[in-house]
Amino acid sequence: MKLFYAPGTCSLGIHVLLEEAGLPFERARMSLKDGDQRKPEFQALNPKGKVPTLERDDGSVLTEWPAIAYWVAARAPAAKLWPEALEDQARALEAMDFIVGTLHGHAFSRLFNQAKYAPSEADHPKVIEQGRAMVAAGFDVLEKGWKGDEWLLPSGYSVADAALFYVTFWAVKRMRMDVPPRIAAHFERMMARPAVQRALAAEGLAG
Amino acid sequence: MKLFYAPGTCSLGIHVLLEEAGLPFERARMSLKDGDQRKPEFQALNPKGKVPTLERDDGSVLTEWPAIAYWVAARAPAAKLWPEALEDQARALEAMDFIVGTLHGHAFSRLFNQAKYAPSEADHPKVIEQGRAMVAAGFDVLEKGWKGDEWLLPSGYSVADAALFYVTFWAVKRMRMDVPPRIAAHFERMMARPAVQRALAAEGLAG
Ligand SMILES: N[C@@H](CCC(=O)N[C@@H](CS)C(=O)NCC(=O)O)C(=O)O
Ligand SMILES: N[C@@H](CCC(=O)N[C@@H](CS)C(=O)NCC(=O)O)C(=O)O
Repeated sequence: MKLFYAPGTCSLGIHVLLEEAGLPFERARMSLKDGDQRKPEFQALNPKGKVPTLERDDGSVLTEWPAIAYWVAARAPAAKLWPEALEDQARALEAMDFIVGTLHGHAFSRLFNQAKYAPSEADHPKVIEQGRAMVAAGFDVLEKGWKGDEWLLPSGYSVADAALFYVTFWAVKRMRMDVPPRIAAHFERMMARPAVQRALAAEGLAG
Repeated sequence: MKLFYAPGTCSLGIHVLLEEAGLPFERARMSLKDGDQRKPEFQALNPKGKVPTLERDDGSVLTEWPAIAYWVAARAPAAKLWPEALEDQARALEAMDFIVGTLHGHAFSRLFNQAKYAPSEADHPKVIEQGRAMVAAGFDVLEKGWKGDEWLLPSGYSVADAALFYVTFWAVKRMRMDVPPRIAAHFERMMARPAVQRALAAEGLAG
């Protein structure tokens, strides 16, 4: 299979999961700045024009972060990336959906592209201010709702940790923002994982 | 268990799934207009201040549309709301995440609350225009990527159909927008389901 990714974007989380899974995969690097996601070849694969995009060995394409994470986890049962008990499964989905849909989709997204929100440039500082408040509120929800020990779920390391990792990477490395203590400790633990280091190195983000 | 819902919002999709599941549940009606989601009693249950919110019989609370859908489906295996094969499961998540995160979260959301996007009121018509284009593009992705027959997945009726239903309900009933032919036919089929009619009646939206 082949992961279409752009360095340091949300596809980093799926990149980590593929490294954890230990399945063979290829990488196709995209530049969002250069508009690779809007080129006809890529639009033919994924008309949504988004990374992560996963092309499977039969040529079929899977999109959406939580769906790709679920499928990768199921294809690599030995890596135990998808929890066994229903309650943990539901909590994994809850965390992934909140992180991808809200914390990334609504909060960080305001810090990355203000023009998508406010047509008037004079309003862009307000969009950033709103984005920062939403990012802080989002991490706060995760910190206060923390049910795990070292990892997000009480059942241990899972797909949800890779989702939390990519948004924390944005906060800590891109935005130089403070994150609450459990989230900060989680980030350190993630950074110590060989799979995370391999994914970062492959994206040119290590060190 | 108890579903916290607001009539005609995205919680309608979960309401439908609970009716399909045939499990006993109570309803707690909220008024988003009156700010019920920001009241301390509700914030204590769900600090995100969102519907759907599901309080389970042990008092624990589950949030996020796809997570609630997954859990309800698993609790009612006889209703076969969660597909059996991995490929269909991944496609169910892909559809739910796109519908909830993008079509609802980015596109419809611009039609419901422009102030969340553009601080300047003069820009609100542009936000609406952008929202309408994004809604059309989102339905187009679903129409062109349609893999099912009567229902969204080739394996038959599932949680994904309830997600598609609530956004199509918004398009057809609230916004009076045209939707592509497969989506329109799907909406008619959904409206003919007794579970859908029961959910609409309970929310005061039937007829
Ligand atoms: N709902 C999608 C969101 C993916 C997404 O927003 N990807 C961003 C990078 S973090 C992207 O590809 N942006 C390119 C663009 O919008 O043009 C998912 O869950 O995968
Ligand atoms: N990511 C959430 C989104 C839920 C959502 O946006 N709910 C809306 C109603 S459709 C809401 O509760 N809005 C109230 C508010 O934002 O104040 C989910 O998947 O459940």
